[in-house]
Amino acid sequence: MKFTITRSTFIKTLNDVSRAITSKTTIPILTGLKMVLSDSGLVLTGSDADISIEARIDANAETNDLQIESTGSIVLPARFFNEIVKRLPEATMTVDVQDNFQTLITSGSSEFTINGLDANNYPRLPEIVNPDPLTIPADVLKQLINQTVIAVSTQESRPILTGVHLVIEAGQLIAVATDSHRLAQRTLELPAAKDAHYDVIIPGKSLTELSRTLTDDIDDVEIRFAENQVLFVAGQTSFYSRLLEGNYPDTSRLIPTTSTTRIEFDAPALLAAIQRASLLSHESSNNVVRLNLDTAAQTATIYGNSPDVGNVEEALSFNRLEGEALEISFNPDYMKDALQGFGQTAIEIAFTAPLRPFTLVPSEDHEHFIQLITPVRTF
Amino acid sequence: MKFTITRSTFIKTLNDVSRAITSKTTIPILTGLKMVLSDSGLVLTGSDADISIEARIDANAETNDLQIESTGSIVLPARFFNEIVKRLPEATMTVDVQDNFQTLITSGSSEFTINGLDANNYPRLPEIVNPDPLTIPADVLKQLINQTVIAVSTQESRPILTGVHLVIEAGQLIAVATDSHRLAQRTLELPAAKDAHYDVIIPGKSLTELSRTLTDDIDDVEIRFAENQVLFVAGQTSFYSRLLEGNYPDTSRLIPTTSTTRIEFDAPALLAAIQRASLLSHESSNNVVRLNLDTAAQTATIYGNSPDVGNVEEALSFNRLEGEALEISFNPDYMKDALQGFGQTAIEIAFTAPLRPFTLVPSEDHEHFIQLITPVRTF
Repeated sequence: MKFTITRSTFIKTLNDVSRAITSKTTIPILTGLKMVLSDSGLVLTGSDADISIEARIDANAETNDLQIESTGSIVLPARFFNEIVKRLPEATMTVDVQDNFQTLITSGSSEFTINGLDANNYPRLPEIVNPDPLTIPADVLKQLINQTVIAVSTQESRPILTGVHLVIEAGQLIAVATDSHRLAQRTLELPAAKDAHYDVIIPGKSLTELSRTLTDDIDDVEIRFAENQVLFVAGQTSFYSRLLEGNYPDTSRLIPTTSTTRIEFDAPALLAAIQRASLLSHESSNNVVRLNLDTAAQTATIYGNSPDVGNVEEALSFNRLEGEALEISFNPDYMKDALQGFGQTAIEIAFTAPLRPFTLVPSEDHEHFIQLITPVRTF
Repeated sequence: MKFTITRSTFIKTLNDVSRAITSKTTIPILTGLKMVLSDSGLVLTGSDADISIEARIDANAETNDLQIESTGSIVLPARFFNEIVKRLPEATMTVDVQDNFQTLITSGSSEFTINGLDANNYPRLPEIVNPDPLTIPADVLKQLINQTVIAVSTQESRPILTGVHLVIEAGQLIAVATDSHRLAQRTLELPAAKDAHYDVIIPGKSLTELSRTLTDDIDDVEIRFAENQVLFVAGQTSFYSRLLEGNYPDTSRLIPTTSTTRIEFDAPALLAAIQRASLLSHESSNNVVRLNLDTAAQTATIYGNSPDVGNVEEALSFNRLEGEALEISFNPDYMKDALQGFGQTAIEIAFTAPLRPFTLVPSEDHEHFIQLITPVRTF
């Protein structure tokens, strides 16, 4: 295997694939980067066993400037190869696999010889031949991920809750995550997929990593499901993730359908006030802030307190407040995560009782995005 | 004590002073920020016992927009106070010390009450009344620090070597640092200080921190020495550091005066090649690169090697090579540190023998800046 390529082109693809490679793996060959060169192009693969990323550099795309001298394959130590490629002196570089998988990397007068491994020993990626992929705009998928993945559990005690539950049915995609203290649910209308039916749980970590690969130059993402894998194809990059096995709890009955107190805020203003209040709650043992809604006086006040440091009190500005007066306490970090998912919009928070979960929805659309937070008992 | 101020003005000064404050101190009150308000202005102080920084906000400077309602003093928990001030909602803020050192911080509808401490319990800064300060341009001082501090020892086994030795005599300032493997020496001509005589050792850490406070808007720095302290005054900021006690070793005889091989490089090109070679040497147990100078063939070649990963070989481009042929091995990290101090200039490296220290000087000025590196025996 021998090729010459523009270094900047190669680095871009190398960066995409390197996201999947970790030095913490227990499978030594996975600390390597796999390269397979055929007449049609160069394919790079990185994997940590949970996530695998494969990216192609097309030989026929002139901008790639890939000159193939001989085809073949190799696995090179990823961390070094990355550092070497980034520090080479010239704009192009040549990679040349020699005897015993020794690989010569040259650029200008600089010449590296690196010990490689046989690519035949690298784990194979699953073949996912589902003929009927879903297609979702990349920015919508990225938003959906960022809005739901905040609520996945980080604790391995209930592994199923570390994933996002995706149900595709009757032309709708519903994504739900909950760590049992809070829940995030996002719904997409997919009229083109009205006959599709899937029910899968994707690890939150995989989705977070996928979301990072979805840069602004990507328009659409194709999603293909197989037995225990999901494949996201975006441009020349294929992103594989394993699925979580098991039954996700039924979350539909958790979302309250009635409310006794409702308040409308601009999400960014409320977020800033919550961040201030949490400066003090973070110093106290229970990390709780208190919200007082006085519907008669039309005031909303937030309180944070730390016995050691001091306290904070802030009159919140809101757009509308109606229903019964209420005092409720909650973890401000859950509120911050939820508010960040709403961006610059106005939101409605609906309460039923001081100890019942409350919901946040965009004022303009109560149906497609909902965040639910369980309050904290403080007495 | 009560004052109102533009938040952005206050934050700038707060950031300067906060550099000296650490949560790792064993003296609890030093985790706090001291504020003293008099009719002439507000003085903020932070300290970690080794370094103290004091900065003034002048009441008479209109741009500061400092409105004083009553004078006084307080110590507030620095980390919180910082976070609070940065997150307040409005452009101005009011600080109001009440009974029992409780301090009210208000901005818009946000109201923090923070437990403060009596400023009388804060350690006093030394009074340094030396009537005859040295004045050095801030950019020259910053360069001098960055060129020498790289060579200070990081090991506490010989505490004296963790400092930079400063000798001011006969209108010259000589700064030297060495960790016994390498040495950096910078000389400044100070004709205005021809009668001054000082011989002090300033902790490297203090100088690194001082260098960070020397932003581009500062023209000159005034330096005052006292018994066991040095004070740097830059604009409205006073930077105090303790001095190291003891005798610094005589370093003048370490610098060779003759050479058998000389080579001239452009510093940035050599730095890039050394960085490439060190990618592999860092993986080997002894972290050494080898330089071969063939004066007959007029070639300079650098080699790096790691038994596990591979090796690198690079023909270096140079401006001039003369004298005897030589092969020498050295720690590439020392070379990198040294080269970074030279910036974009051409440098001359002079060697005497494979096991004797070699020197780096700017091609244009061999007298005022010299780096010395001890090679490594590899056989």
